[in-house]
Amino acid sequence: MGSDNGPAVVVDGIAKSAAINPDVSFILHGRASELEPLVAKRKLGHRVTIADAQDVVSMDDKPSHVMRNGKDTSMWSAIESVRQNDAQVAVSCGNTGALMAISMIRLRKLEGVNRPAIACLWPSRNPSGFNVMLDVGADIRADQDDLLQYALMGASYARNGLGLTRPRIGLLNVGTEEHKGRAELKVAHDLIEKNARSAEFDFVGFVEGGDIPSDRVDVIVTDGFTGNVALKTGEGTAALIRDLLREAFNHSILSKLAAVLALGSLKRLQKRIDPRRVNGGIFLGLNGTVVKSHGSADATGVSAAIKLAVTLAEGNFNERLAARVASAEGHPVQEHAP
Amino acid sequence: MGSDNGPAVVVDGIAKSAAINPDVSFILHGRASELEPLVAKRKLGHRVTIADAQDVVSMDDKPSHVMRNGKDTSMWSAIESVRQNDAQVAVSCGNTGALMAISMIRLRKLEGVNRPAIACLWPSRNPSGFNVMLDVGADIRADQDDLLQYALMGASYARNGLGLTRPRIGLLNVGTEEHKGRAELKVAHDLIEKNARSAEFDFVGFVEGGDIPSDRVDVIVTDGFTGNVALKTGEGTAALIRDLLREAFNHSILSKLAAVLALGSLKRLQKRIDPRRVNGGIFLGLNGTVVKSHGSADATGVSAAIKLAVTLAEGNFNERLAARVASAEGHPVQEHAP
Repeated sequence: MGSDNGPAVVVDGIAKSAAINPDVSFILHGRASELEPLVAKRKLGHRVTIADAQDVVSMDDKPSHVMRNGKDTSMWSAIESVRQNDAQVAVSCGNTGALMAISMIRLRKLEGVNRPAIACLWPSRNPSGFNVMLDVGADIRADQDDLLQYALMGASYARNGLGLTRPRIGLLNVGTEEHKGRAELKVAHDLIEKNARSAEFDFVGFVEGGDIPSDRVDVIVTDGFTGNVALKTGEGTAALIRDLLREAFNHSILSKLAAVLALGSLKRLQKRIDPRRVNGGIFLGLNGTVVKSHGSADATGVSAAIKLAVTLAEGNFNERLAARVASAEGHPVQEHAP
Repeated sequence: MGSDNGPAVVVDGIAKSAAINPDVSFILHGRASELEPLVAKRKLGHRVTIADAQDVVSMDDKPSHVMRNGKDTSMWSAIESVRQNDAQVAVSCGNTGALMAISMIRLRKLEGVNRPAIACLWPSRNPSGFNVMLDVGADIRADQDDLLQYALMGASYARNGLGLTRPRIGLLNVGTEEHKGRAELKVAHDLIEKNARSAEFDFVGFVEGGDIPSDRVDVIVTDGFTGNVALKTGEGTAALIRDLLREAFNHSILSKLAAVLALGSLKRLQKRIDPRRVNGGIFLGLNGTVVKSHGSADATGVSAAIKLAVTLAEGNFNERLAARVASAEGHPVQEHAP
């Protein structure tokens, strides 16, 4: 209900996914009076159950307000359906902060996780076409133990969501030399290295901003402040180039003709870096799986988020993640704490 | 001497700049035996003085090592020429960390500046085509007072380097709502706001990563860790798109034909986001001006860095900057410190 484009787009996304995945069923949370006609129009009645919820979380609502007053919202209802095992995964295009806040208080943190994280997919030179980066905004701080947990959770997500049997983990820093970077990053470096073998990932050490879209690494670990800035900077840079490219091709008759000829090529490029295809941030470290789609997602974007949700549900992702975090090697935190 | 492409490229850049700027003269620091033939070949003998220095700082040298053992390097000699007022600005394509370290110990910090910063230019939707961002890597931390100084120095640089009479300053954060972000950012927000009037800039408040390439803001203020990650992420994203674009146009005969027709358009785009044109990070907050060019700069890049250096020297930039920092409004730091 609370996405930028309203519920019709979400129902369109469900229709796309329903056609591809005959075994998946949907619980749609929101105002039944609005949703019923949308579902009926697309003949999805046999695939979709509507969970009536009268209130809507808007993009401007503060998480703290929603936590206190949000019990009748569609967002709350969706998270509640995961808590009660009616749904295996929740998908939302709504307010990220509010969604994380509700998820935190209703699903609770996984045993052993101090700060849950949001992981995003990032276009890269990897064979799969993507990297995973976390945290991109669940929390603005992360200490060395949080960073270790992000590494474990990110590795588990890359394995179950992207199908990488032995993901390569990198820790984001400003330089690869040993004398650079913050103190907690050096401690985190050693903690992650220590856990690489038992958690079945390769640790490539420190990586820099330029490595995020590279094929050096599958999972980039960082605090939520830095990760959020990096994510939005990357998106903003891509958007700028897209606009400048459009401008360049609109410059003259010749360039317009070239654009027509290049249409196929440009579409291939667009597809490669299309945010809709990488749509689906995921909340990691909770007792339940929550996929956060872009607020401005269209039907293709919603369908991509559902596809990710289905993949994770089929692989019992959250049970595997929990086991992974629980088996992290003990480390003398007190020794390192400042 | 210590750039990726060697001294010939630097001399080529000087030749380009010398042709455009008849009033500028150059002191070239490095091994005279190598430099003399390069200068003679380009008939620059009357414009260039060679300052012989036998040692070279390599890209792998640690700053601490260079500080102790670097007295005979070309880099040290170049900074020394600024310190002794033989040169008005130093330009280097060498090791950034070493250059900052030498600049710090020889030029010393400006009165009132706690942490000098590196400012870079960033392709944006602004009329000038660029934003300024600082700090992008001089220091990995910045407290509220440092952030205020970055705002003052960035405004002064935008005024004198980019010709913006009333620059718009933004403080980088993860969200624009008042409840987000780190505590020191909130204090810095108020400090910068308080100084906007007397320092003759507009404060647009918090900005996000996506605003960096936007036309909302002229100067983005952040700590050196976040700024460095953002800079390299943006560069990496642009490089990825450039490669994918090339791939897309190489895909078929038709797309290759389109590429030929689109050549002009693509060159316009390339020029717009060409790192060589925005070449020239600048060190702010020292008793002297130092322009840091990309290590991999070609002659065009070196010439762009020299152009920036000339602009700043002609405007007596460093005197203006010093006056601006000195006149910062007092602020009750103790009240806000955690």
